[in-house]
Amino acid sequence: MTFTCTSTSPIVETAAGKIRGFCLNGTYTFQGIRYATAKRFHDPVSVEPWEGVKDALAYGYIAPLMSEGIPHDEKLIPHRFWPESEDCLYLNVWSRQLDSSARKPVMVWIHGGGFSSGSSIEQLAYEGGSLAEYGDVVVVSVNHRLNILGYLDLSAYGAEYENSGCAGIADLVEALKWVKTNIAAFGGDPDNVTVFGQSGGGGKIQVLLQTPAAEGLFHKAILQSGVIDFGPNPTPDGHRKMVAAIIDKLGISADNISALETVPFKQLVDAYNEVAPALRSEGIDVGWSPMPGKYYLGDARNVGFCDFAKSIPCIVGSMIGEFAVVSLPPKKDEMDEQARRDAVAAMYGDSADEIIAEYKKAYPGRNIVDLLVLDTRFRRPNIDFLDKRLAATDTPAYCYLFALDFPIDDGRPAWHGAEIPFAFHNTDIIPICGIPGVAERLEKQVCTAWTNFARTGDPNCAELPEWSVYGADRATMVFDRECEVRRNFDSRLVELVAKASPARPSFPV
Amino acid sequence: MTFTCTSTSPIVETAAGKIRGFCLNGTYTFQGIRYATAKRFHDPVSVEPWEGVKDALAYGYIAPLMSEGIPHDEKLIPHRFWPESEDCLYLNVWSRQLDSSARKPVMVWIHGGGFSSGSSIEQLAYEGGSLAEYGDVVVVSVNHRLNILGYLDLSAYGAEYENSGCAGIADLVEALKWVKTNIAAFGGDPDNVTVFGQSGGGGKIQVLLQTPAAEGLFHKAILQSGVIDFGPNPTPDGHRKMVAAIIDKLGISADNISALETVPFKQLVDAYNEVAPALRSEGIDVGWSPMPGKYYLGDARNVGFCDFAKSIPCIVGSMIGEFAVVSLPPKKDEMDEQARRDAVAAMYGDSADEIIAEYKKAYPGRNIVDLLVLDTRFRRPNIDFLDKRLAATDTPAYCYLFALDFPIDDGRPAWHGAEIPFAFHNTDIIPICGIPGVAERLEKQVCTAWTNFARTGDPNCAELPEWSVYGADRATMVFDRECEVRRNFDSRLVELVAKASPARPSFPV
Repeated sequence: MTFTCTSTSPIVETAAGKIRGFCLNGTYTFQGIRYATAKRFHDPVSVEPWEGVKDALAYGYIAPLMSEGIPHDEKLIPHRFWPESEDCLYLNVWSRQLDSSARKPVMVWIHGGGFSSGSSIEQLAYEGGSLAEYGDVVVVSVNHRLNILGYLDLSAYGAEYENSGCAGIADLVEALKWVKTNIAAFGGDPDNVTVFGQSGGGGKIQVLLQTPAAEGLFHKAILQSGVIDFGPNPTPDGHRKMVAAIIDKLGISADNISALETVPFKQLVDAYNEVAPALRSEGIDVGWSPMPGKYYLGDARNVGFCDFAKSIPCIVGSMIGEFAVVSLPPKKDEMDEQARRDAVAAMYGDSADEIIAEYKKAYPGRNIVDLLVLDTRFRRPNIDFLDKRLAATDTPAYCYLFALDFPIDDGRPAWHGAEIPFAFHNTDIIPICGIPGVAERLEKQVCTAWTNFARTGDPNCAELPEWSVYGADRATMVFDRECEVRRNFDSRLVELVAKASPARPSFPV
Repeated sequence: MTFTCTSTSPIVETAAGKIRGFCLNGTYTFQGIRYATAKRFHDPVSVEPWEGVKDALAYGYIAPLMSEGIPHDEKLIPHRFWPESEDCLYLNVWSRQLDSSARKPVMVWIHGGGFSSGSSIEQLAYEGGSLAEYGDVVVVSVNHRLNILGYLDLSAYGAEYENSGCAGIADLVEALKWVKTNIAAFGGDPDNVTVFGQSGGGGKIQVLLQTPAAEGLFHKAILQSGVIDFGPNPTPDGHRKMVAAIIDKLGISADNISALETVPFKQLVDAYNEVAPALRSEGIDVGWSPMPGKYYLGDARNVGFCDFAKSIPCIVGSMIGEFAVVSLPPKKDEMDEQARRDAVAAMYGDSADEIIAEYKKAYPGRNIVDLLVLDTRFRRPNIDFLDKRLAATDTPAYCYLFALDFPIDDGRPAWHGAEIPFAFHNTDIIPICGIPGVAERLEKQVCTAWTNFARTGDPNCAELPEWSVYGADRATMVFDRECEVRRNFDSRLVELVAKASPARPSFPV
């Protein structure tokens, strides 16, 4: 291992000033680069120029979260907690070359956690150095405003708050502008930028694809478990009621609305938590997501695909297990056929036989007990999104389903986020990916596909069987111990399971 | 990499019940084992027995901290932040064998952060797996109460609070009892337990050595940068004034003192922060450390060495740079002799020549500019402690000084905590330890010495020149690119520097 960080190197000159990072085993790393500042509820503004050299040697503050962290599921997803502050508009860069002629593909990671939580470093698997090295790409990850700070729409209270309902998205647009302006100095190609993200990160990419201000700032998109039916989007009326209730609770009036900019964050959260239950019981959506309107046009599946987005190639996929958190019976592989069928019937009742028959066609060789956790919440909207996109544009899209079993609890099908270490080429630092003879190969397949796609718009590579463009055949790359493209293989299964398990427990997104 | 965690393995039966961990590359790991519970300000009590199997797959909550985290100095010391809760009495175990006949030496890590902050997982270098494997030892790390929750002495308010001024130490004693009772089931030898800790962790070990309740619970001790002049210890009078001011601020009276047990932690902290400045200006110590008395006898250098402690072999050491945070001039190795002397003279004035002459004798070949950060705050009390201990007992002690330069800012002498990755055999996960041809060798030297000491009470090993027992010669192992035992080599230098730099800026401890 070789570390260098001298008084003169590595230093990069950005448009606003010089920054110093460090070099680890040949990968230049810059952590906590401030890309903008923002007054609460206002648009971000680019950073003021500075003299001298600023250190970029520590990840920046993450956006304030509305609930306290709880250590849980650390083996499924190892987390990194980090100090929070409204001063949170920071990004990180990893690159193998600091030379503006290098023009490597740029991959910008947009983190998950819905639109309300997470950070660019929330998961250990988000470290970008290994991906930068393996894929010879420049990796960027970015913090931006979340939850009540990112999506409280105060537009009714004054023109200066016009875009407050999309502030978190405006931060991402500002970050992408920073990338366009500065990434060449880090060896990246500003004309070849891929945004990739998982869960809420994919959701934010869906939003960026419907945000005209983002046109020209990215050129390809990977949505990992990011297309989902979010339930009722915020409606202007319902959201306005919520805002009114919050400011009322805080004793702030409409003609004194700027007081909301200085209320301590904790008080803002308390006020929200006090008014939310009653609103929720009225059927009002009190969740956080961008307000559709002039800035963000709304879900493409409802309002149509934004023009510029039609020429953006996409990868869209999901996991075989996702958020289905049902406990699997122990030693599922030692159960006999009848015991397996009984377990499935206990969940799916009369539909069990039909579902099992479909499952055996869709997944020959797989244990039918895994039906207990088969995802439909992501797979259905993914297909819906891709079908509608197919009708709107000829620009290629590629679909995947990540179906690996992991060595915990006698074999657990891939859950929400289980693919991230593979995409980041980080399986060696995530213990649960310790599957000898399997993880390394699959990581090579996923990561090569991702970086080839970033390079050329086509994920095909020697490591994988041919990955056909998504078409009427609903071609889907199934990532597993053996990877394979399947066509029209699970639509009926997914419909049957979704219909038979309306009450199956599941995490909220 | 191989990970296993099935429904049946690895499971260990503790006195209170079964727990399941995981196995990574042959190292069994149990995270977040609850070893006790405690009502606020009361002694810890051992855990209630349970049925079935509890998972120990995620680190437990860390103790509540009185100030918010700030990302800083991440290259010098990579941190892990983690959720906080008063429900924090958790420990972690790493072992290569789960077999009660294995009886491997046990090393219990006690974290730093004074008596007021930190956690068993605060630093990335605290991961115990690599040490367990390299040294074939069982590693334990432990959370315990800190700051106002660990050391507020309410004994004046009722017998049930008798030991509240030492609650954090009582937690450690309880954890060591848990180790004594349970560690054999994890492959450890309950009759061969070494406590090791850095900074406040070493300070807590000093305290444990003066705590009769800890007798028989550990057998060897390593104090890394842990012996320091803490300034005024809490005095019963001053501390009592502080307690009175806090409860007064909270509107709690002496006859209603139990209300203090349910005040939200944040309010407790706010009350302390409001009353502390005035008390401090009266000269009252408002810091956190255990109240000397019946439970903790007080600093051995003042009250004499506790009987049982006299038979505990020790390693005691410090760093060449420690908390001296002066910036070094850039390119210090390219400066000519005169420029170097000028830099030293700017700090030490008239004493500079004498100091430089002493330095050249003590550290031939080392850049005199490093005098700007030469530690005296730890080295002096280390020598004082060892001298007094030598007068009190023949049980061997070994002294070290860690003097490596690191590749940041054109070469920075080892700071407070820089040795931790070496002791834990974790230099490969701490970027700044990336010094090819140096770090790996030095890590082997330090880690072999530490684990040999844990095994036998003697750190000597083939990797190092002979490490003499500390005696009148003040024999000190200097860990550096070349390791060497030096005798009576720096006492005069340390005195001169301490005298000439009373106002040199330094972190508070």
